Amino acid sequence: MNVNDLELGIVGGTGKQGRGLALRWALAGARVIVGSRKAERAGAAADELNRRVGREAVRFGENSEVLATAPVVVLATPFEHAAETLRRAGRALRPGAIVIDVTVPVSFRAGRADYIEPPEGSASEHLRAFVPPSAYLVAAFKTIPARELLDVGRTLDCDVFVASDSEEARAHVIEAAAGIEGLRPLDAGTLDSARTIERMSVLAINLNLRYRAKGARYRLVGVG
Amino acid sequence: MNVNDLELGIVGGTGKQGRGLALRWALAGARVIVGSRKAERAGAAADELNRRVGREAVRFGENSEVLATAPVVVLATPFEHAAETLRRAGRALRPGAIVIDVTVPVSFRAGRADYIEPPEGSASEHLRAFVPPSAYLVAAFKTIPARELLDVGRTLDCDVFVASDSEEARAHVIEAAAGIEGLRPLDAGTLDSARTIERMSVLAINLNLRYRAKGARYRLVGVG
Repeated sequence: MNVNDLELGIVGGTGKQGRGLALRWALAGARVIVGSRKAERAGAAADELNRRVGREAVRFGENSEVLATAPVVVLATPFEHAAETLRRAGRALRPGAIVIDVTVPVSFRAGRADYIEPPEGSASEHLRAFVPPSAYLVAAFKTIPARELLDVGRTLDCDVFVASDSEEARAHVIEAAAGIEGLRPLDAGTLDSARTIERMSVLAINLNLRYRAKGARYRLVGVG
Repeated sequence: MNVNDLELGIVGGTGKQGRGLALRWALAGARVIVGSRKAERAGAAADELNRRVGREAVRFGENSEVLATAPVVVLATPFEHAAETLRRAGRALRPGAIVIDVTVPVSFRAGRADYIEPPEGSASEHLRAFVPPSAYLVAAFKTIPARELLDVGRTLDCDVFVASDSEEARAHVIEAAAGIEGLRPLDAGTLDSARTIERMSVLAINLNLRYRAKGARYRLVGVG
């Protein structure tokens, strides 16, 4: 797969994580469409991204439009809105579409982040019920700090853990992630690995807080 | 703290993880006593370790003896025996003793590792009930592969996540871990972080299996 053949939709594409992924993929040569609940907000984000990329690489639309258009859709809304977004527009997904869930349920109190464990074990397993059977859910990018994605002067130099119950969808997202410079995708197996990966994201936030850092992220040593 | 002032007991010190930590600490100059249910097995392990270290750095005894002697005790039995070991001999711990729990509850089936979630949320939180109130429990070294510890020709080049509800005990283990070459200790906060760290260990095992590797371990990028 060539990254130029990639077509990615970013639902909730005006948030930091969404814009960060859109930016990195657009820089790599992929076609990106960012979505928001309101098209004009998505348009403003696309304008900013295109300025940074230096060409018209990013289009925009409403979330529902993005869901209906792209063969690979990143779900980059906050976790609290993710299920509702899928419930309302999930049926519009193209058959065989891949939904990449990047959400992490987290709350902040007393200067620390806490993982909010969904009854299904993880956010990804919770969201699985809202994805139509003709589409695939993949957990990825949960441990990649949005801030680092947006700071293109910085080498990411970290791993992205990719988990899905569909081996094919997982392989596709691994290829797509490999298109982003400095990211090494790792096959983390079935979707229940999201229980680990989401907690790792919260641990990284807490390590950021403790060490007055901002971009804590993981690199696996001894593999590959 | 100078690593030469460190005195460490390793309960279950004949297993790979126990021997690995004993070896690395002994090489760093710490005084180490390895324990086993049978003193002669501990003696054989100590002999082998002393041969590798090149001096009489490692003593041995029965587990109960080790628990009663060392100010810092590594609990390196398999998780299945850890609670029983503490139940039987935990009262012998010195007042103020620190127990380092390195266990990870894991099962293997169909070519993959599965985390066995204890009702308390993690192995460390499960074991906490078996540590007398005069002693401290610290989770650490759970993501460090035993095989890498034993292969002293190899640079560890990874992080060790240290968690405890006692800030003082945590700080002490962080200093002790820093004595091992190539290890960077990170303060992972309260003991419930073991929920994350133990799962990370299982994820690393599965990544080893998938990528035909053996020493998968974590390094945090962007901190320190």
